[in-house]
Amino acid sequence: MFIRFITTGGTIDKIYFDAMSQFEVGDSQVEQILTDGLVSFDYDVVAMFQKDSLELTDEDRSKLRAFIEGDDATHYVISHGTDSMAETAAALRDIANKRIVLTGALTPARFKTTDAVFNVGMAVAAVQIVEPGVYVAMSGQVFAAGEVKKNREENRFEPITGEQKDL
Amino acid sequence: MFIRFITTGGTIDKIYFDAMSQFEVGDSQVEQILTDGLVSFDYDVVAMFQKDSLELTDEDRSKLRAFIEGDDATHYVISHGTDSMAETAAALRDIANKRIVLTGALTPARFKTTDAVFNVGMAVAAVQIVEPGVYVAMSGQVFAAGEVKKNREENRFEPITGEQKDL
Amino acid sequence: MFIRFITTGGTIDKIYFDAMSQFEVGDSQVEQILTDGLVSFDYDVVAMFQKDSLELTDEDRSKLRAFIEGDDATHYVISHGTDSMAETAAALRDIANKRIVLTGALTPARFKTTDAVFNVGMAVAAVQIVEPGVYVAMSGQVFAAGEVKKNREENRFEPITGEQKDL
Amino acid sequence: MFIRFITTGGTIDKIYFDAMSQFEVGDSQVEQILTDGLVSFDYDVVAMFQKDSLELTDEDRSKLRAFIEGDDATHYVISHGTDSMAETAAALRDIANKRIVLTGALTPARFKTTDAVFNVGMAVAAVQIVEPGVYVAMSGQVFAAGEVKKNREENRFEPITGEQKDL
Repeated sequence: MFIRFITTGGTIDKIYFDAMSQFEVGDSQVEQILTDGLVSFDYDVVAMFQKDSLELTDEDRSKLRAFIEGDDATHYVISHGTDSMAETAAALRDIANKRIVLTGALTPARFKTTDAVFNVGMAVAAVQIVEPGVYVAMSGQVFAAGEVKKNREENRFEPITGEQKDL
Repeated sequence: MFIRFITTGGTIDKIYFDAMSQFEVGDSQVEQILTDGLVSFDYDVVAMFQKDSLELTDEDRSKLRAFIEGDDATHYVISHGTDSMAETAAALRDIANKRIVLTGALTPARFKTTDAVFNVGMAVAAVQIVEPGVYVAMSGQVFAAGEVKKNREENRFEPITGEQKDL
Repeated sequence: MFIRFITTGGTIDKIYFDAMSQFEVGDSQVEQILTDGLVSFDYDVVAMFQKDSLELTDEDRSKLRAFIEGDDATHYVISHGTDSMAETAAALRDIANKRIVLTGALTPARFKTTDAVFNVGMAVAAVQIVEPGVYVAMSGQVFAAGEVKKNREENRFEPITGEQKDL
Repeated sequence: MFIRFITTGGTIDKIYFDAMSQFEVGDSQVEQILTDGLVSFDYDVVAMFQKDSLELTDEDRSKLRAFIEGDDATHYVISHGTDSMAETAAALRDIANKRIVLTGALTPARFKTTDAVFNVGMAVAAVQIVEPGVYVAMSGQVFAAGEVKKNREENRFEPITGEQKDL
């Protein structure tokens, strides 16, 4: 099994810069998470963007899509900011014959308490098992693209309508 | 979605007791991992054993099997010591109509650097997606029961023969 | 021995709020640090401010000073933002017959990698040993108030002139 | 300021080896703690022993003492197992004209929750301030050598008789 990881920024990679008293997207935490997770499959990591997901543009999404369509891998995990993760998933939805799982974090991976490691673990398992298509792994659940939204008030991902569907 | 977690002990739950200068199986770390993972599905946790997996007996495995067969849940994640995880998975293999994923850790969940959180994330995603059956989620991979072994020299899980099979 | 901790905010207590994609001063981390540090002396914690230190006003400093002067404790550790820690230390300098050590962090205590725990440990040891007066414990060193500044470019505390003086 | 750190093993450096299902003394954590603590003084680290402190012999203590007496540094922090830390401190007590602080941990530094970082922070501050002599920094307190013991039942360090004395 080979998984290509694509990093696009988001809260998962945020770091605190004391000199500016602010938080910015730093280097990707995905490789550290995989190393700590003691994974033994083959993978590489492509760093594509380093942005808050609210700053990702349609042009960025087109670039991401074109990269995947022109690439020879079949399994992808994309780390992504949470605010527009559902939109990006929808934008990639009809790519044929590939398994793509988006994930990210509501709390930075560099925090002691974070959902980042759990979420990347979910995405790695999901991408090995799902039918070809595009998915979001967040809030302990795996959702099909187009059927998930972020509920900002509750700070979680949930089905657009009613119940989570079986995959 | 409802997942029943069953804890049986193992390295994932180990704690260090200074007074005895030794390491023992402590309280389960699964609930803390799920809380930190910000999961939003329903679950409960059944604490069944608190043992090193080398100390689990055939009687223990029969008790575990009988519990699951007599229980009304359909999705299970079992935390388990790594040394006999493959054996327990094989012993549960022909339970009908349930999805069961075993996981654990090579390094205790209480360590700063641990595979525990990643592995539980994998197990949670896998149990939502797999066909009914019994699986092991370790080393970044999801294996069918009966097709996986622990390689103690390399400290990882791997297919019994050759390549990992598609699930 | 009794130590009164006074918390005023600063980076040490910062937390990330995903809903606003920003970092703010959260609840004090001092009690958690003392609990994890397995301390066995008596203490309490007074939460006085919850501010970035650049927002602390002269009025705030007067209030802090008046509190300590009117209080019956003799040993204080004050957690404080780094940007104006040296100024606050100088403002408290001539309080008589009390031992006061200010500390804080360049990286939030909630990060996996942080100087917060080390710094609070330093402050706790220093306050037990120093002569009455006001001190700053940062960057692995204990400085007398009035003889220390933050070097923002290098992100560290250092003597105002030349060498660190013996205390 | 220059501090020479001497590491001798103990719980602070313990690591878990899954292959043997046991806990052993691993590489010293002191340098990592100093790096994370963002210290800016000069130091080096001498790795002298890598033992549980119950295994330290009188010969080991003589070797440690001879090393310090023949060495040109004036400030030492010694990381040490807790079970015989008080004994080693007493054995070094009459070395002249040096400041020596022993510390360690009741929980390994590699754990998420540990007293190791706090304790090393205490030792670093203490060694800068104390009068020449030998001290133990544990349980949030700085004790003079010969006046401290480990209370194994309570898992803490405390004065041999009654109250902690002023240093």
